[in-house]
Amino acid sequence: MNVQGKSYQSIWIHPEDKGIVQIINQQLLPFRFEIINLSHPDDIIFAIKEMQVRGAPLIGAAGALGLYLASLHIKPGQNGMSVLKHTAEKIITSRPTAVNLAFAVNEIVKEIPPKASVREIQEITFRKALERMEKEREYCRKIGEHGLALIADIAEKKAGEPVNILTHCNAGWLACIDYGTATAPIYLAYNKGIKVHVWVDETRPRNQGSKLTAWELGQHGVPHTIITDNAGGHLMQHGKVDMVIVGSDRTTLRGDAANKIGTYLKALAARDNNIPFFVALPSSSFDFSIEDGIREIPIEKRSSREITHIQGQYRDELLEVSITPEHSPAENYGFDVTPARLITAFITERGICQPDKKSISRMFADLLK
Amino acid sequence: MNVQGKSYQSIWIHPEDKGIVQIINQQLLPFRFEIINLSHPDDIIFAIKEMQVRGAPLIGAAGALGLYLASLHIKPGQNGMSVLKHTAEKIITSRPTAVNLAFAVNEIVKEIPPKASVREIQEITFRKALERMEKEREYCRKIGEHGLALIADIAEKKAGEPVNILTHCNAGWLACIDYGTATAPIYLAYNKGIKVHVWVDETRPRNQGSKLTAWELGQHGVPHTIITDNAGGHLMQHGKVDMVIVGSDRTTLRGDAANKIGTYLKALAARDNNIPFFVALPSSSFDFSIEDGIREIPIEKRSSREITHIQGQYRDELLEVSITPEHSPAENYGFDVTPARLITAFITERGICQPDKKSISRMFADLLK
Repeated sequence: MNVQGKSYQSIWIHPEDKGIVQIINQQLLPFRFEIINLSHPDDIIFAIKEMQVRGAPLIGAAGALGLYLASLHIKPGQNGMSVLKHTAEKIITSRPTAVNLAFAVNEIVKEIPPKASVREIQEITFRKALERMEKEREYCRKIGEHGLALIADIAEKKAGEPVNILTHCNAGWLACIDYGTATAPIYLAYNKGIKVHVWVDETRPRNQGSKLTAWELGQHGVPHTIITDNAGGHLMQHGKVDMVIVGSDRTTLRGDAANKIGTYLKALAARDNNIPFFVALPSSSFDFSIEDGIREIPIEKRSSREITHIQGQYRDELLEVSITPEHSPAENYGFDVTPARLITAFITERGICQPDKKSISRMFADLLK
Repeated sequence: MNVQGKSYQSIWIHPEDKGIVQIINQQLLPFRFEIINLSHPDDIIFAIKEMQVRGAPLIGAAGALGLYLASLHIKPGQNGMSVLKHTAEKIITSRPTAVNLAFAVNEIVKEIPPKASVREIQEITFRKALERMEKEREYCRKIGEHGLALIADIAEKKAGEPVNILTHCNAGWLACIDYGTATAPIYLAYNKGIKVHVWVDETRPRNQGSKLTAWELGQHGVPHTIITDNAGGHLMQHGKVDMVIVGSDRTTLRGDAANKIGTYLKALAARDNNIPFFVALPSSSFDFSIEDGIREIPIEKRSSREITHIQGQYRDELLEVSITPEHSPAENYGFDVTPARLITAFITERGICQPDKKSISRMFADLLK
């Protein structure tokens, strides 16, 4: 999608130097637009750990490209395969909770024949990393197409009035390679000239909504308004939301969807006000091995410092200020689970899927084995 | 309640100078504990507008004391009554949503005989303002007693485990004169030795929960944990909340309750998880003239700067940092309305009241005329 009028992905290979991976430093958004050059697998690991790149599909792709960079640094006399496996291990543990990361990295390691030459390793990791990026990109584009139809339906009824879409957190192109998941239908609708307006939940405590989603929508030109996480219910009560689209970090076989903390509250409000609530996700975000999301999906508890402190810009500096009483404890849950009964439908790369075991099993039958 | 071991109210008349009203500057909490002297009605209006004082009962009392200060500044030759009415108008329009402000101010204006002397006006406004403070204080204490019984019931079932109470915003003693509304039952339970633990919603955008409620609970010694506004639903799904108690800025005859934005989302989550949801309020926060809260209660829209910027402490300084993209708009709704159907009961100074027109009309029959 566009930044300052120019098309970007969230990660790419340097157009003039195949030995460099480039990323947008998401830690500095929306305050600074900084592109970082990564030329060593350790740079990739650092970028993942420090959340310069974040979002499940993006860190999967970053991990894959990390293996490719590792292949470029195999020294004469080293066993290429063992260098690669060692790097894979380090990449996977850089954010141990992200399933996509291990998936993307292991998938590539498995591809490499045991006695491959360094050149072969370089060729395979390069090709597979590009394939991973292209696959994620294509999944998102297809999610966008299927979701676009839903937006177009509402737009027709609204006869020229903008379709108001509420989203939570950042399931945007910054979290993916391009398009995003929740945002893909929005970008496609906007590009097609359909009037849309996005209510962007701030998404405390890390503010991925106000810091990332608002920024990427703004750069692409999509009309949007930042609101607090508290405001969505009120907007829905007053007819100011036509649909909700969110992403998902993990969705179970029966359709319970884990997503950024607070998603469940929006799903409740949408239901209470008869507003459709969609979860946009690629098939790779389903976990077909579990059913009861509330009991079975482990919820990451993160540092309380994300609640007690916040990063912001003061004059020309980026500072972290304290915002709570010195001695008050805080607890920071990263995700919550929206039960399938509150979800209108899933928007996947294969089409719209009803939120029940039967429909999910049918649509993804080949992946269930 | 206690601050650093010493008992305080949120507003009082200077013990040695009856021409000065003193308040705790709530804008600087929890970073600084500063007492401000107000000697002119414009100081009161400024304090209300800038939210140095906030909370429906407290701004009612502040408004009443503002009239008293106005009476001290009637100049020779001025018509005292018209000075007072002019001030009353300015005070009432300084914050639109809470009904207490207009109620407290109009009640005093009505008391004054048309041809009252300046001295009479001073005496009446002084007496009535003190009465208002005492009344609010007493209302809160009684709310505390009625609510205490509800907490004690749960405590009995929990056999030594703490009763986990979730609250939103600050309906604490800082919002009232003393005790608070939502917090009154908590303070009384704590003082009585009942084990309680409070989940304090941060309450974006002004963070009255993490800045004020956490501070006042901490100062008094009540165990509590700050959470983001997004987290309550997750906690309820996992059995970590025994009851919700919130305040209300205005509640209608049929029991629809306006309170800080986001309250409605917690009421939905409480209902979805069979957790009792109580609204604690004095009779003065009822608006018996309206029924449909969602349609009829005006919702204050506040500056978007409250979303785009945040105050915090950096080293020894209080700074306001920017936290959103420069060109992204934000909208800031101050309140939402929780429909009566989601409320378990009201905790009032007269007792526990069911959330329906019949019960409310019966309990407050004398106030309905």
